[in-house]
Amino acid sequence: MTDLRESALRYVRANKDAFLETYLEILRIPSVSTDPGQVEAVRQAAEWMAARLRELGMQAVQVYPTARHPVVYGEWPGAPGAPTVLIYGHYDVQPPDPLDQWESGPFEPTIRGEDLYARGASDMKGQVVASLKAVEAILRTGDLPVNIKWLLEGEEEIGSPSLEAFLLEQREMLACDFALNPDSGMLGQDWPTITYALRGLAYFELRVYGPAHDLHSGIYGGIVHNPAIALAELVSGMHDEQGRITLPGFYDKVRPLSAAERAELARLPTDEAHYLAQTGALALTGETGFTANERVGARPTLDLNGMLSGFTGKGAKTVIPAWAMAKISTRLVPDQDPADVYKQMVQYLEARAPGDIRWELDDLHGGVPSISDRDNPGVRAMAAALETVWGSKPYYRREGGSIPVVSQMQRLLGIESVISGFGLPDDNVHAPNEKQHLPTWYRGIEALVHFLLNLKP
Amino acid sequence: MTDLRESALRYVRANKDAFLETYLEILRIPSVSTDPGQVEAVRQAAEWMAARLRELGMQAVQVYPTARHPVVYGEWPGAPGAPTVLIYGHYDVQPPDPLDQWESGPFEPTIRGEDLYARGASDMKGQVVASLKAVEAILRTGDLPVNIKWLLEGEEEIGSPSLEAFLLEQREMLACDFALNPDSGMLGQDWPTITYALRGLAYFELRVYGPAHDLHSGIYGGIVHNPAIALAELVSGMHDEQGRITLPGFYDKVRPLSAAERAELARLPTDEAHYLAQTGALALTGETGFTANERVGARPTLDLNGMLSGFTGKGAKTVIPAWAMAKISTRLVPDQDPADVYKQMVQYLEARAPGDIRWELDDLHGGVPSISDRDNPGVRAMAAALETVWGSKPYYRREGGSIPVVSQMQRLLGIESVISGFGLPDDNVHAPNEKQHLPTWYRGIEALVHFLLNLKP
Repeated sequence: MTDLRESALRYVRANKDAFLETYLEILRIPSVSTDPGQVEAVRQAAEWMAARLRELGMQAVQVYPTARHPVVYGEWPGAPGAPTVLIYGHYDVQPPDPLDQWESGPFEPTIRGEDLYARGASDMKGQVVASLKAVEAILRTGDLPVNIKWLLEGEEEIGSPSLEAFLLEQREMLACDFALNPDSGMLGQDWPTITYALRGLAYFELRVYGPAHDLHSGIYGGIVHNPAIALAELVSGMHDEQGRITLPGFYDKVRPLSAAERAELARLPTDEAHYLAQTGALALTGETGFTANERVGARPTLDLNGMLSGFTGKGAKTVIPAWAMAKISTRLVPDQDPADVYKQMVQYLEARAPGDIRWELDDLHGGVPSISDRDNPGVRAMAAALETVWGSKPYYRREGGSIPVVSQMQRLLGIESVISGFGLPDDNVHAPNEKQHLPTWYRGIEALVHFLLNLKP
Repeated sequence: MTDLRESALRYVRANKDAFLETYLEILRIPSVSTDPGQVEAVRQAAEWMAARLRELGMQAVQVYPTARHPVVYGEWPGAPGAPTVLIYGHYDVQPPDPLDQWESGPFEPTIRGEDLYARGASDMKGQVVASLKAVEAILRTGDLPVNIKWLLEGEEEIGSPSLEAFLLEQREMLACDFALNPDSGMLGQDWPTITYALRGLAYFELRVYGPAHDLHSGIYGGIVHNPAIALAELVSGMHDEQGRITLPGFYDKVRPLSAAERAELARLPTDEAHYLAQTGALALTGETGFTANERVGARPTLDLNGMLSGFTGKGAKTVIPAWAMAKISTRLVPDQDPADVYKQMVQYLEARAPGDIRWELDDLHGGVPSISDRDNPGVRAMAAALETVWGSKPYYRREGGSIPVVSQMQRLLGIESVISGFGLPDDNVHAPNEKQHLPTWYRGIEALVHFLLNLKP
């Protein structure tokens, strides 16, 4: 066993350039799942994933069509009697806008210093390729002591609308002991991390309509409710003076933080100075009565993700716009439900929207929050692996982002997920100049080798 | 004299098609003064104007360069001892965005029904061509009984930044008895109108900066002040519950409306039903204590003209934007000053902007409000001309739009303006599908013939 571990790690170190080549290949495919113009690129990324699984000798490899973007499946059932781990990943990415802020093309992966820049480098093509390469390192140098199933979807960045149906239909094929989900990240380069809770998401588009068409602001200014101002009024009323969200009943199902959990979150290395450095904000802010670590991980939030109205070009156009739009999303914690939050948003608008405008609310997507058991064989194998590679025990944290598949797998497959990953907080995920720290990525591949070998019963 | 009037009117009626051809020509030139990409088109429009003046036999025709877009001048000094009228016009237009809402191209003039659709059809290429054609009709059929000077600028839609210097430098050349400014319009097709007061303008761009770059709304939601929300909060605080503007000192210099003037404004045919029909709004709104006619003409207002932040494409992107922008403009009434309002906006922001964001305010342009004498030979000549053509006395109104040149001419040349025009309230000026009602345009040419002939001492 020590021999296999050593030989697999030697394989990783000997094949760094080849691994990087594979990584660059998939980063060049612009698999933006929300963009109707990139359907073909998303399909191409799925085929690329299937081809890699076949190269690895996986069986039953198949690209399953769904209502939108395909799911890629493959399995390696070569260790009868040993545990089966389902490796989850997504091969789709966020849109690259604003394009003009990228220092190199989002789909032209470029290395600067120790970082590899490209959309999806961190979230999460890098993590999927790291998983593929860890399995490759073991299989090319010995025997895999566990069974593996791969579930690679193309809709994570749009809320995984087809995944629930797929999990239900393929429940037997996907049967396993637990899942590995490397779609989270580390608190810092020297701070290996396991995530045990994830926030959920409810994402809306609110459109406010005023006059039937754009109006001259001189001729008509003073008699119509400007829809951009009406939108600003509605949005600014969604928080109170304490930074609490005012949607009716929003906090009803929020699970209170226990004293023990607050103490644990207080031990995280991510202090205010860390968050100030990561965000570049002048000051931290948010709900009063909670620390920064609590606010980003264990408390729900509401953000504007985008806003558009009227004339936004250079110079001045004296117009009263006919409409205004905001993308509004909430991050949810156990036991909030995105379907409830949609109703609360409708109630808020019904109560607060003035009678001189019309409004429409689209429910763009949602994901249920999750919290999981920290003491299971999967988590123990990952904790040991991270400690071996980094030389320090991992941090356990609640993470602010949303990975709806974790709660879907709990609910539909009855399995827990080991949630980790090798992205860093300053990777600019969902933003221009997304990157992956390459030394951390290579360490991550080694950690995944240890993780898989640690699972041997 | 009756003969000249009759022959000039016959000329107008005989040359309708040729007049329309001239009109279409200038509408095809995309002279968008705010657009740095259209500098050449603006110059071309100036040359076109100069060519028309030369064809008319005007003297001293010249295209005067300025810091930005040229001023076209020409004169007809053929009536020594008679009054001199300075005909003001602008050949530049507003940007055509949003382009996708035009039923025909903004620079491909198209007739549908009785209307001619194109950017600038109403504001104000149509009014300039009507003036040219009225002078042509008189000169081709007899003698012009007054002297004429033309002042045609290309920067009206960006606040006429070069005009003040031009008026000062060329004060002697521009000496005259009064100005004709046909850049206003009519209250309705059957309601000829003379405008005696104009609102001023102060137009700003406010940019709010939060984090150093776009952030993942899951990982960082809860600790930074979202700049789009901060902008919404700032903007929504700019009006109070009574619809009054909260900038400090904003109303200090507003001239109160006299009872007599309120009574006069109450007689205008533009009632609430009229404004509801024109705007398509569900309800009228605005500052409490004032009628709709008072609010659009005699009270100052604040509008959002545009707003932009974060992700505005299709679908969902879970980002906390790094910045947000709003175009904010105020319409001013005597004796407010745009320079004061800029300072008041800065004071408001200094007092209200939270310490966790940065902000920048650009003063994009301003114009001083004006109010003028209603009893002078020019206004009397126009009132008689309108009554001759429409068969009813004109309405006198305060107009909500801004024509800064009127107050500049008062101040720098010491002259009053006769403010009228033949656009209609539903012409969609500054909006998609701008149009000019052609029967009203032809009537306008006849009215201008009468006006010029009425000026004979």
